[in-house]
Amino acid sequence: MNAEIIAVGTELLLGHTINTDAATVARELSAFGIDVMHTQVVGDNSSRLEECLHEALGRSDLVFTTGGLGPTDDDLTKETVARITGRPLREHADSMARLLEYFGPRTMSNNQLKQAWLPDGATAFPNTIGTAPGCAVPAPGGKWVVLLPGPPFELIPMLEQAVRPFLQDLTHNVIVSHMVHTFGIGEGLAAERLDELLQGANPSAAPYASAGEMFVRVTAKGATLQEAEELAQPLLDAVRQRLGDVVYGTDIPSLEAAIVPELIRRGQTVATAESCTGGLVAKRITDQPGASAVFGTGLVTYANSAKEQLLGVPEGMLHTHGAVSEPVARAMAEGVRRVAGSDYGLALTGIAGPGGGSGSKPVGLVYIALATPDDTFVHVMRPKGRYMGREWTRERAASHAFDLLRRHLSGLPMDYEVH
Amino acid sequence: MNAEIIAVGTELLLGHTINTDAATVARELSAFGIDVMHTQVVGDNSSRLEECLHEALGRSDLVFTTGGLGPTDDDLTKETVARITGRPLREHADSMARLLEYFGPRTMSNNQLKQAWLPDGATAFPNTIGTAPGCAVPAPGGKWVVLLPGPPFELIPMLEQAVRPFLQDLTHNVIVSHMVHTFGIGEGLAAERLDELLQGANPSAAPYASAGEMFVRVTAKGATLQEAEELAQPLLDAVRQRLGDVVYGTDIPSLEAAIVPELIRRGQTVATAESCTGGLVAKRITDQPGASAVFGTGLVTYANSAKEQLLGVPEGMLHTHGAVSEPVARAMAEGVRRVAGSDYGLALTGIAGPGGGSGSKPVGLVYIALATPDDTFVHVMRPKGRYMGREWTRERAASHAFDLLRRHLSGLPMDYEVH
Repeated sequence: MNAEIIAVGTELLLGHTINTDAATVARELSAFGIDVMHTQVVGDNSSRLEECLHEALGRSDLVFTTGGLGPTDDDLTKETVARITGRPLREHADSMARLLEYFGPRTMSNNQLKQAWLPDGATAFPNTIGTAPGCAVPAPGGKWVVLLPGPPFELIPMLEQAVRPFLQDLTHNVIVSHMVHTFGIGEGLAAERLDELLQGANPSAAPYASAGEMFVRVTAKGATLQEAEELAQPLLDAVRQRLGDVVYGTDIPSLEAAIVPELIRRGQTVATAESCTGGLVAKRITDQPGASAVFGTGLVTYANSAKEQLLGVPEGMLHTHGAVSEPVARAMAEGVRRVAGSDYGLALTGIAGPGGGSGSKPVGLVYIALATPDDTFVHVMRPKGRYMGREWTRERAASHAFDLLRRHLSGLPMDYEVH
Repeated sequence: MNAEIIAVGTELLLGHTINTDAATVARELSAFGIDVMHTQVVGDNSSRLEECLHEALGRSDLVFTTGGLGPTDDDLTKETVARITGRPLREHADSMARLLEYFGPRTMSNNQLKQAWLPDGATAFPNTIGTAPGCAVPAPGGKWVVLLPGPPFELIPMLEQAVRPFLQDLTHNVIVSHMVHTFGIGEGLAAERLDELLQGANPSAAPYASAGEMFVRVTAKGATLQEAEELAQPLLDAVRQRLGDVVYGTDIPSLEAAIVPELIRRGQTVATAESCTGGLVAKRITDQPGASAVFGTGLVTYANSAKEQLLGVPEGMLHTHGAVSEPVARAMAEGVRRVAGSDYGLALTGIAGPGGGSGSKPVGLVYIALATPDDTFVHVMRPKGRYMGREWTRERAASHAFDLLRRHLSGLPMDYEVH
């Protein structure tokens, strides 16, 4: 079965909006084993959309559109699809009931009301966030045109809640996929370790690199959810085992999202002392709702005087070793743990660049320390190859700090190599 | 003149990569007044790409491709374009010289060498970042196929340095555009104030909303750079004047990018005390290279005990008013200014959500304070309408804090309304 995607919207053609919808839909389709051969963008223009739809239906089994379902005059997708499939728009009772509930006592214009009209015989997809439902419209030759809303915050829940079951019925498949997240291994080395595990079709495993991390997506399809899960599990286990202790979690979005719940579970706390990352580590911890249970104090000691005054780093140490050094990172971590009265102290001091580097202390060098009740561990992040910029360096250093704490919490060896 | 864009890459069809290139190219074309009627994505498949190119050349004057120029076997764009334009690939001397310089003493494979081969008669666009040059290939009927690399960090400089002059020659136009950045005004109110200023075609002004801020792009084209600038300036001035003191800068990317240089110019410093933003304000200040001249200390006092211990906020005040209150924000700002010995203290305390709200203190409520040598100002950010999520609330509150400082540094009235 193959598919193509038509994104509708003049703002996409002008480049004011980036077409993320096509990627969102494509990932969903590819999980079902449906090949996406083509994606297009057209403006809010009925005759050009009609041309695209004819072309798409000529070569694909499923045609997905995104956008053009709203209440304004330039929302023309539904009318155009109704015309070319020969299925006139009719009021759809459930959709009208939802729309009336959404608007409550407010009056609706005719344009707003038309959102509850769907092509005759279409399968409706309720919009749980906004007003315009999506739908799947039968087309000649057993094909389908699937109409979805443009705003990603409406599209994504509709895909998960309504389109996925529709595709399951259509393909007689249930798809499950799981993400194995790692830190400290490159795509190349991961692929080498996974080797023949990457060759399967169902279940399948594929590595992806994104923002300095590498994750492996394991996907399986079966006639039922249970069958798909039973197919996925052995491969998932094998992937995790081959990758070993670089795996920080499955189906969680970040290192800090693994650490905060683990500290909550233990009833332990962490405090931070940051120089080059300038608050980023604290920010990433407090991105997690509920972080207040494990995080009370973070110190951004950007200046040497702040390192002395707030953390008790000795002036002589700063003078002898420089702010970017192993002893200073250690003293910062121990200092913040003491000041905050926390179980753990995380500290970072380095050169994020682009300026400030020297021969012995190049841009990209960061010392990262973890103080625990028993011991303090210091890790060095050294620049490799091309300088990746200030933002990348800071994000990467913050991830290193979280990984140091994760390893300690997991009882892993603390003398490890990061690739 | 009209154009269309074909993005080449199987990773785009699978949804692993989002097609940002099409938006980047479209914005550039629309600045030249070139209409983009259509964009497409095709996989790394020569025959399907050939189909797309034939179709595109049938209806458009300019066809832009992105991707498929690299050294691997599935990079087929150049070969395909050479075939359909009847312009065989030949070694391009300048491109070969650049490639040899890039690789230095390392040996190159044949695939790497082929990157310096271009369709006969093409105009080469040097790649200042990577290895594969772009080019513009003449096609029958006075049309052009313009080949650009896929990676955005190679594409963007090539667009600015090589494609822009090419389009200037082609259209006999030079384009200038300037961005007027604002904080504290919505798109609707801005459009109302700008009114007929938004009607012009050359020069033109258009408002955009992005990540809680609103900016206005002023664009002009002329036969020379000077002519275009002279056309743009009066409209640019008028836009700034109509919008008034919500304008924080022209052609700068963020509030903090306006504030850090201004503090450096004055030789003044700022310190931060954050509760709900958890380090984000410090992080955004230190995103700016050179921030160490104006920022030495940031305190993340997430817990009440940290507010007392590090900032001297009285326990009784926290008890009587609660941590999220006007007096506590004021005490935090004055406390961090005193502790850090800085000229200014910025403090934030609020409820970022999703949990933690109550009837009198709803999620989204944030108190923001600025302590100066003479006075302390407190601003309240109240939730309006739908809750926009934790990340939005934190980013918006941080921007409010920067805007408070900007207004003070600019000598503007401090009793202002934010929309």
